[in-house]
This record gives sequence, structure tokens and C-alpha cells, in this order.
Amino acid sequence: MKYKALTGLAALVPLAACTNKAQQPNIVFFLVDDFGWVDSSVQYGEELYPNNLRFNTPNMQRLSERSTVFGSAYACAVSTPTRTSIMTGMNAAHTRITNWTSAYKDIPSDATGGGFWMSDNKSSGDAAAGDVLGRPDWNLNGISPVEGVPHTQYANSLVQYLKDAGYFTIHVGKAHWASAGTPGVNAYNHGFCVNVAGTMAGMPRDYSGMDNYGNTKERWNEFAVQNLVEYYGTPTHLTDALTSEALKTLDYPIRHRQPFYLYLASYATHTPIQADERFAQKYRDAGMDEGQAAYASLVEGVDASLGRVLDFLDAKGIADNTVIIFMTDNGGNSENKQKGGVLHTQNKPLREGKGSNYEGGIRVPLMICWPGKNRICRCDVPVICEDMFPTILDIAGIKDYRTVQDLDGQSILPLVTGKGEGPSPDRPLVFHYPHKWKPYDLVDIDFLSAVRVGDWKLVYRIIDGALAVSAPTPGERSEAAARAIELYNLKDDLGEEHNVAADYPDIARRLADTLSAKLRRWDAVMPIVLSTGAQAPLPDQLVLE
Amino acid sequence: MKYKALTGLAALVPLAACTNKAQQPNIVFFLVDDFGWVDSSVQYGEELYPNNLRFNTPNMQRLSERSTVFGSAYACAVSTPTRTSIMTGMNAAHTRITNWTSAYKDIPSDATGGGFWMSDNKSSGDAAAGDVLGRPDWNLNGISPVEGVPHTQYANSLVQYLKDAGYFTIHVGKAHWASAGTPGVNAYNHGFCVNVAGTMAGMPRDYSGMDNYGNTKERWNEFAVQNLVEYYGTPTHLTDALTSEALKTLDYPIRHRQPFYLYLASYATHTPIQADERFAQKYRDAGMDEGQAAYASLVEGVDASLGRVLDFLDAKGIADNTVIIFMTDNGGNSENKQKGGVLHTQNKPLREGKGSNYEGGIRVPLMICWPGKNRICRCDVPVICEDMFPTILDIAGIKDYRTVQDLDGQSILPLVTGKGEGPSPDRPLVFHYPHKWKPYDLVDIDFLSAVRVGDWKLVYRIIDGALAVSAPTPGERSEAAARAIELYNLKDDLGEEHNVAADYPDIARRLADTLSAKLRRWDAVMPIVLSTGAQAPLPDQLVLE
Repeated sequence: MKYKALTGLAALVPLAACTNKAQQPNIVFFLVDDFGWVDSSVQYGEELYPNNLRFNTPNMQRLSERSTVFGSAYACAVSTPTRTSIMTGMNAAHTRITNWTSAYKDIPSDATGGGFWMSDNKSSGDAAAGDVLGRPDWNLNGISPVEGVPHTQYANSLVQYLKDAGYFTIHVGKAHWASAGTPGVNAYNHGFCVNVAGTMAGMPRDYSGMDNYGNTKERWNEFAVQNLVEYYGTPTHLTDALTSEALKTLDYPIRHRQPFYLYLASYATHTPIQADERFAQKYRDAGMDEGQAAYASLVEGVDASLGRVLDFLDAKGIADNTVIIFMTDNGGNSENKQKGGVLHTQNKPLREGKGSNYEGGIRVPLMICWPGKNRICRCDVPVICEDMFPTILDIAGIKDYRTVQDLDGQSILPLVTGKGEGPSPDRPLVFHYPHKWKPYDLVDIDFLSAVRVGDWKLVYRIIDGALAVSAPTPGERSEAAARAIELYNLKDDLGEEHNVAADYPDIARRLADTLSAKLRRWDAVMPIVLSTGAQAPLPDQLVLE
Repeated sequence: MKYKALTGLAALVPLAACTNKAQQPNIVFFLVDDFGWVDSSVQYGEELYPNNLRFNTPNMQRLSERSTVFGSAYACAVSTPTRTSIMTGMNAAHTRITNWTSAYKDIPSDATGGGFWMSDNKSSGDAAAGDVLGRPDWNLNGISPVEGVPHTQYANSLVQYLKDAGYFTIHVGKAHWASAGTPGVNAYNHGFCVNVAGTMAGMPRDYSGMDNYGNTKERWNEFAVQNLVEYYGTPTHLTDALTSEALKTLDYPIRHRQPFYLYLASYATHTPIQADERFAQKYRDAGMDEGQAAYASLVEGVDASLGRVLDFLDAKGIADNTVIIFMTDNGGNSENKQKGGVLHTQNKPLREGKGSNYEGGIRVPLMICWPGKNRICRCDVPVICEDMFPTILDIAGIKDYRTVQDLDGQSILPLVTGKGEGPSPDRPLVFHYPHKWKPYDLVDIDFLSAVRVGDWKLVYRIIDGALAVSAPTPGERSEAAARAIELYNLKDDLGEEHNVAADYPDIARRLADTLSAKLRRWDAVMPIVLSTGAQAPLPDQLVLE
């Protein structure tokens, strides 16, 4: 009878090719929030930078020594687009989920809230004295596992395929795929068997158990963290509480030898930057200001969480059959005074930070550890968050699946194992943020698109692109067009300090064409040019001199 | 390899005897809240009473036709003690969890809150002109799966054994076993693989998705229901939302042929009595007042939830291998104006309601359906909530388990299947509520203990017992002692209208001895007699004339 039941099981797996369960590795996706490329002692770049030296992250270090460390891994500039790209395998310009989702549905998160955004200060550079762009018509409710929900991208989720193939699928932490009141906000609808604390919240109301993670009459808002009632009134830090819950949920699949997928998405190191007092004092003693020390303590809390997971896998004797993916949802936040230090420098040598399509906003930590399979220690081939969908299914041995959406990502497993063909180093990677981030202008963050091809990167300043087709005089239009396109060679100029568009017009034109073709093919959303009511132009629509 | 893995699995089950998984039935425990013995069209009594006729519950009816219907099933008088007795197999007097747990730890829920209760009006009957009793030192933080937590009962939970034996264990709805800030409040610590919405809350802040189940800035308190963000801003009733989530969580075990234990504990029909507008109008049209109609609509919502579960099991083809236990946590609430009708009559023919150890507070609906195994349609052997622990393990085929606690319950499965020996009809069942329920006095609710033996039931009025040892004059003491002990013959007097203690002093003495012996053996908590500082006497300590 036992054997018969097992045979029956295989028949119940509809979408995946039959796999030998013993060959299905466990997968832990450890996703950190707002955690920058130089925010740990792990060397992702070609050298250790001064910023790396501020952090104490021994467990990340320990993981890096067993992993393929990616030096040119990319996410989107903000949270939701990365998370939905992981879930769907689609580029954010393709899902049209290009900004984070609001807590409640149908409310744009674009700065200044509902209705069209009107610049309340000034626009890009010194070009715009008035309002230039209006909010694009994006999928502001996020992803949806069912068709027909307004302003969502309907897609099959990565997790559903894992579950269909026999994985016990666990969500712990920050979800932030969709707004409350829609099916997409519910992890169970995406194929998770368990959900702890995943909601519409893109940040925690409070990191401290002493404040019930924001669940008090005085402090409650929609970002109060759910499911952690055990720790109310205790000093348990949110990162630690989530880790404890994650390890508890692993008990069932480990006992029953079910492969598991644990998506452990820390709320840290997102704002509010509240010190984790387990770790903060040594950073203060080292001379950091309070914000820096608090941030470094949040980072070390994440590191400790990773350490608990690694220790647990070791103790259970399953580390050898568990793949660990360590990644961040976007670049470090370099625009928040809570974090201390000097604004816009925290990601140096990278330019800018979260929200921006300069490298500081999108280049992120990525490590993949598959014991016994890692053949490559370090990889500088550019990879991107939507690659996670096919990569994870590749790791799970799930093939021949069909999705309602067209996938944009590619499996990067060959870059880990050295077997098979991975993505080309010259594959174009597209970044698209047609939004205004804050109520005040941030000229190196708002309304930027970008494409990377090999060592070249083009940044498209959409405001200037709009002025290039709408400014009153030919001279102004021409000047705007020139400002709209920036070209950098990342090999020589990682910090994107030297715009060489004028020196390499052919390369700039080729990348502008590539970016435009991708955005056009995906029917990507563009902001509205307020003076004309038309969509802002794609970069190949500009007349470049 | 597959076979080897399965052999290994059996080796991982430490506490339970090895069972053939194919023989392990699924178990659905459908626990309703504050739902009285006559609150449906199902006939639990010897006849259908007028109150039965007010409700439309076709799915309960449908289940009853396949079930063993228990006519003399008992719970405790309030929520937490029943729920913790189910989890531990212990009588509430034995766990010393005799009242409901507060949201936050170390806060007594006894009326008037912290510190000793001081009667703010008058005490029992006409005997007490002043304060008589103070709060007992009970386990006000509930149960705990770990030792050493102050004011808790440490115990192994029913659910842990099911999980150990291979069950996929799911909690959906109201937990209310323990206070926030303690390990016992976390369903994952009791052996649940999944928890949806179970917290320290003993009631929902709001039943309506339009109010986000209480998760709004204006309405939030600690009873706001967690985990239902999908339904925020929609008209989805809480009962329906919980049912949807429960069915989603069944997907994994059904696909993987894992036996499951679904504990679906509705927040309905607890206060607030908010109409479920899917059903309310027909009750209004039938002439009920608004409170009655609202309550009847909550009941019909629960019935619809049961119907969805039954339909789902049918549709999945697993109804034949699924045991359904339908029960309530205490008697119907007869003391809340929100509910409409005439107070203290809603459970007629039973006396009183929730909070009371008269029959209206403790006699509850119970049906057990095991397709192909039910041999008995109706059973009037008295059974009690702590029986659920051994009964459910009996159903699951789990034998030879050891618990840190001494069990008080017995398996009632023989009363369903007709095989083996079930509890004796003369087994003493003990009820103990040494608390004050409301800020005002409720003489037929506050401070009552009771024991049922066969058709006889003794009710012990603890206030009068205290006066019997502390009143100033011998005459007052003697009168109080006479009032303290009431005796009813339930066969002749289901409504407990005729105290026959004076007519059957030997029987009264025998039951008083039985109750006292049980309470003494369990070291049950008793209130403090304020005038002496001593614990209130047990009934056998009274000098009965």
C-alpha cells in the first residue's frame, strides 16, 4: 500500500516532469531588503571598498566561501518590481509593475499620491521650470494569480510550479507583491503552503517586540507586522522573530522528506532604521553616528539570521542538499537621513542608491550556494532578478513547464555549476522607473530608464526626453535631447561619472535602439508629457545630433 | 531510493506507533464559538424546542444525518478552558485554566481586571451585602508547550502527536489558548504546520471585510483579525474568508496524500453580533428583532461554511476518508443585549448560558461523522471536551503515546462506532468556574462549580460556600451552607428548575464528595474568601444539615 501511494503521488503532479524526489534539493531564497552592494564584508566588486569595511557580517562571509558570488547582479530600483519579477520571470517593464504597490488597491504610490503627479518643486536638472511629466498608467495593484483584476499583471508564480512538483513552499517575511483587497496579496494564492507575516506591507511598522512590531493602539498602521504574537512585549527583534518562525515551519518537510522552498524575505534593512541593540553598541564605539550604527546593527541582525539558518541546516544534516540563494531587492537606500552618514555616498563606489537606475540603485548582492555543484567561485556576467524564476525551476529539476506569461529571464545555473550554457555577457538588461519617488525632486532617481549591454550602459532621462519633443524652441529641444541620453563604460567607470555618449554616438544609438525595442515590445508604461497629453517618447524617438 | 526514503520516514516518527498512512483518516474539527445547543435545526435534545425553529442550518442538518449526534456533550462555560482542554486532554479544573486568557500576559480577565476582584454591586442571592470572594490564582496565561512559563499549564498538545504521526496539521480561525508574549499563543509551537488567523484574540474586532476585520486606524485593537488582507475592502464576511483560506491550505496534503488535521475554529458566533447580510433579511422578515436576526445570520454563515467544507471534501473525493467533528466551545451567550430576544431565555429549555455551569452554559452541540464507521445515530452518554484529545488520537490510530500531563478525557470513539468500550454513563464530569464574569453580578453565572454523575447534577455556589464558613452567625452559616449545594435530576428536570438537594441528601453528599475529591486531586484553584484570606471551601468541607 505504501508503494502504491507513492506511485499515486507522481500522478498527481500535473505540470512538472516527473522527478525523483531524492534528487530535488531544498531551496532557501534569502532575500534582504534595501541592502546595498557594499553593505557587508563580502566582496562583490573587484576590490573591497571603504564602505565594505564598516560592516560585520561573518555569516555572509561564510556563505560566500561556499558560493558563486555574482559581481554584476541586478534587481530593480525599488522593492515590488523586483519581487514580482522573481515571482513571474518577467522584466518589470514587461509586468508594468514599475513601482512599489500601495497598501490599499487602486492608490498609486507615485509621489504625491492619487491622481496625476504634479511636480511640486522643480523638475529634472535645470531644464524644467515647471511640471513636465504625469504618472504613467502602470499596474499599481501588482501581480495577480487570477485573470481580470484591474491594474495587475496576471501570471503563474514560480512558487506554484515548485508546489506542483512536490515542494513544501514557505513564505516568511515581506511579500509586497500586491495591494490589500486583491488576490495577489495572498501568498496562499501564489502556491505557498505556509505564510508567516507576508502582507501588502513594504516595510515594518516597528522592528521591536517591545512595541509588538507596531501592533499597539498608539502605533498601528497597515505595516504592523502580523503573526508574531508570541514575541509581543519581548525584546525579540523582528529579524530574529521571523527567523525563528521560518525554522519552525521547516519541521514538517524535513521530517517527511519533502523538498522545501523557503522564501525568507527579511523586512530588514528597510526603514525605519531602528537599532538592533544586540549589535549596535560596537558600531557606536567605532565612531559611527547613530544612524550609521543603527543601520549596521540591522545588517548584522540579518547576518545573524542567515547564520541561524545555516546552522540549522547543518544540524539537521540537510545542508548538503540545500541550495541557498542570497539576494537583495534593490540597492541600498542612500536618500534617508535616518541611515546616517553622508547622503548619496553610502553605496560608493556606485552612484546613487535605491530608486535610481544608476548602479547604486540596482546592482545588488547575489550569492548562490549549491554544495557539491558550485564550480565557479566568482561570476561577473550580468544577471537580473527575473532570472531567478527559470534558475530556481532549473535547480528544482522542473522542465517543460508552460506559463501564461512570456518569460524574460534565463537560468543562470550554468554560471554556478559550469555546466551548460548560461546567459551571454552581452545580453541586454533593462531597467525602467518611470516614476517620481519622493515629494521633492531627485534628479538622479526620478524618471530614469537604463539598459546594460556588456560593459556599456545607457541611462535615459525621461524628463529630458519629454522636453526634447515638447520644449518650445528647437534649441531647447535639441539641448534636452542631448541631456536625455547618457552613456557609461562600467568597466572603466563603475561610478558612472563620465558620460561618454558624445564620444560614442553609434554605441549610444545602438543601446537606445535596444532599450526602445524592449520597451516597445513589452508595451511598457511611460509617463505622460503634461504639455501634450502624449506618452513620453522612447529614446529612439529622439532626434539625436 | 523512494522505498528507502519511506522507510526512513517511519523511523522519524518518535512518539506514535507506526501506522499505515493509507489507514489514517483525515480529520476536520469544526469548532464553533458561543453557539448554543438549540441554535440550529439539529435536534440534540429529546425533542425539537421552539428555539430550534428559529434557525436555518441545512448543512448542519445534512451532517447530522451522517453522524453520531451527542445529546449530552459538554464543554466548559467559557472559551479558553474548552480550547485548552481539547489541546491537553485535561479537565479545566486540572489545567487551572478556568477562565479565558487576556490578550496580554499576566493580566487577569476576571471582572474588574487586575488585582483581586472586589464585587462592585452585590453578591450571590440575597445573602451577601458586601464583598465575599477574591480572584483565584489561576493559570491566566493559558497553556504552554514549554516548561516554566509563569501561570501556564505545561502540556503536550494533541496536535503535536498528530504531526508526529504524519498528519499535516492546519489551524484556521480562533486559537485563544494563551496570551500574547508567551510561547503558548503561537500555533506553530503546538504542532501546527500552518496557522491562519489564530492569535490571542478571543473575539474578532469586526466581521466585515469592508472594515478590514478591524484593521483600520480608527478601529484597530488586539482583536483585529490577522492574515486576511486579500479580503480588505470587500464585503467578504469573516466566516467565509476563513473558510476560503482553510480550503486553500488543504491543497498540499490532498495532493501529496498526507492525512490532514484541519482545526477550523470559527470566530462566529461570538460577539460582536454583526449581521451577515448574505442571510439576515429573511430573519428580519420573519419578525425577529435586529439582534436576533443578526445572530441567526451569523449562525447561517457558520452553516454555509460547513457546507463549503462538506462540498469540498465531496468534490475532492475524500469525504469517505474524512472524519468530521462538529462542536462548540461553550453554551450560547444568553447575557448580551446585542443578540436580541429576551435575555437568559435563548438556550431554553436549558437554564442560563455562556459563563454558567448550569446546562445552558456547558451543554453543547457535538456531532461526529466517520463515513462507514458510524454505527450509532444518537448517543446520550455524557461526554466532555477533554475527551477530544484521546478521541482524536484514537481516530488517527495513534496509540501508546506518553504525555507530560495526566489525561482526564477518555476516547468516545466507541460511542460512535459501537466497537469497544466507551466512557460509562455514570462517569463524573466536572465543571469549575471560580470567577466573576462581568462587572455586574450574575448570580447564576459567577463562582459556580458543578458535577454531573448519570442523571444527577450538583451545582456548588462558591459564594454561599464561602459564607457557610465565614458568615458572622451560626444561623447565617447554616443558611448559606444550605444554599450552596443544589441538586438536579436532569432526566426529569433538564431546565434545572427544581433543586432537590433537601430531598436526596445522600445523593447530594455523594456528588459533593465526588466533586471535592476531583478538585482536591487536581489542586484546583478556588477564589479567596476576603474576610479570612483563605481559599473558599470545597463542598465537602461544608457542614450540611
